[in-house]
Amino acid sequence: MSENGSIAGIRIVAVVGAGVIGASWAALFLARGLSVTVSDPQPGVQEGVYAHIAEAAPALAALGLDTTDLTARLTFEPDLATAVREADLVQENGPERLNIKHEMWRTIEANAPADALFTTSTSGIPATEIATALKAPERLVVGHPFNPPHLVPLVEVVPGERTSAETVERAVSFYRGLGKRPQVLRKEMPGFVANRLQSALFRECVHLVTEGVVTMQELDDIVTSSIGQRWAVAGPFRSFHVGGGEGGLAHFMSHLGVGMESRWAAMEREKVAFDEPTKRLLTEQAKDFGGTVDELAAERDRKQITLMRALAETFDA
Amino acid sequence: MSENGSIAGIRIVAVVGAGVIGASWAALFLARGLSVTVSDPQPGVQEGVYAHIAEAAPALAALGLDTTDLTARLTFEPDLATAVREADLVQENGPERLNIKHEMWRTIEANAPADALFTTSTSGIPATEIATALKAPERLVVGHPFNPPHLVPLVEVVPGERTSAETVERAVSFYRGLGKRPQVLRKEMPGFVANRLQSALFRECVHLVTEGVVTMQELDDIVTSSIGQRWAVAGPFRSFHVGGGEGGLAHFMSHLGVGMESRWAAMEREKVAFDEPTKRLLTEQAKDFGGTVDELAAERDRKQITLMRALAETFDA
Repeated sequence: MSENGSIAGIRIVAVVGAGVIGASWAALFLARGLSVTVSDPQPGVQEGVYAHIAEAAPALAALGLDTTDLTARLTFEPDLATAVREADLVQENGPERLNIKHEMWRTIEANAPADALFTTSTSGIPATEIATALKAPERLVVGHPFNPPHLVPLVEVVPGERTSAETVERAVSFYRGLGKRPQVLRKEMPGFVANRLQSALFRECVHLVTEGVVTMQELDDIVTSSIGQRWAVAGPFRSFHVGGGEGGLAHFMSHLGVGMESRWAAMEREKVAFDEPTKRLLTEQAKDFGGTVDELAAERDRKQITLMRALAETFDA
Repeated sequence: MSENGSIAGIRIVAVVGAGVIGASWAALFLARGLSVTVSDPQPGVQEGVYAHIAEAAPALAALGLDTTDLTARLTFEPDLATAVREADLVQENGPERLNIKHEMWRTIEANAPADALFTTSTSGIPATEIATALKAPERLVVGHPFNPPHLVPLVEVVPGERTSAETVERAVSFYRGLGKRPQVLRKEMPGFVANRLQSALFRECVHLVTEGVVTMQELDDIVTSSIGQRWAVAGPFRSFHVGGGEGGLAHFMSHLGVGMESRWAAMEREKVAFDEPTKRLLTEQAKDFGGTVDELAAERDRKQITLMRALAETFDA
């Protein structure tokens, strides 16, 4: 996909803001042969990014990418204006506060090349609002990764009201060339799609555990042995369509729709909140996962890579 | 796991009610070396079950089971009293109506061996209510599979108020010996766990499509490339625990809990229903899946088997 260290015309990326998301993006960009300049004024950013790249390297290698000399094309430039001067793409991962993003993007626009592509990893602020700081709002689009960006395929590409079609196309081509699965949303919606779905399911998860129907660990086991496996290979609509038999989704809705609606109504009446007793219960049960968070994350990533490779090898998916 | 055609002391299974669920159970029991008597008074049941077993055979073979002569140990006996006379296990998959189930279970109890294990595949009626028809309610437990039972690992084992601990243990040992992942619920809850979670997520799916944020196909792609892959290898609690970094789930709740609560509140205010415009829109978009429902189901199953085998080979999961 990458030829001479370039993907869809992009060779140099400025990664602005190098927390977990920024560092993970940087690792992926580097493994795909791009040159990366990281800009973050925080002290210790260099050590943090190096550590994160070292942590991500085994996963990137397992995905088939070249991880030798990963940091050879990595530079650090705390001054934002200088950092973006030669960038073909600016991927911004700054704090989720509108005034900070506005200030960053003003500096970026004033100093980046005129044809650089502008993307923001924001999970919460619409491109329309961020772009009000720009003279050329058509250049900016949301490119929201699912965490961690170096591993999970999805990137939600969300244009603002004034984002140009060309910007959207360039972002999609770039992310696709990077090996991701970009999905353009047709409307700006708080939380976009994946996080909204995750929140909707999680509400009922919390309800079932606080009600004592299952423990956290038991609920997780139920998910991995049923809907998780399903949704890894066929989304919820396709699953219900197939579940409807010959009549498909129409049959499903006419036969089971009423039952589902009444379950929805029941769920709306449930009181679910992260109140003190809930927090205490969940924190307590989280101890049963065993292992440190780092160990659990590594195990999860190894399993996900196994799954991704198996599906890719068999179905080129 | 099965020795001399027996699993956890069970050699002969009566499958009562042979719709899609019953036929799929029968296929799995046979592939695991058990003897199966199918009892269903419907005309054409024999052809239907044979067809379903033939359809399930490739998946069972791909899962490593012996599918030669699958129907050699299969018999049909429409008379329920006769069908259960030698059963070690009765797995009931009758219509989801309490009066029909009561009548069935009275006949089963009066005619099955005194030590036969009683399980019901019901997805909606609590064991407590079904067991009121029994002289020995301690013998009955819900063994609710996720569709299709021959493929998806989960079986929700849900004891009623009077189910004995021994019955629960026997059911768990049997399903585990069958290669499933049984999960005992601690409380009877309408819809149990997996279907409730599925409904909770699907409400937001329908909302996002009717709002025009994404199409059905786009939403499915988002799920398979993000949360689906995640939840196939780590459930929602473990995912948020890991996502919380060093502080784990406690950190996640204290930092992102308020944001999630406000998203929940917003979702509760959404009006979501299978009204006529919604049904029309979803039925229309379902055409874009392409292929017949059978083709889509086969593709989904092939992918899921690939995933299951890869995880099993690497992690013995």
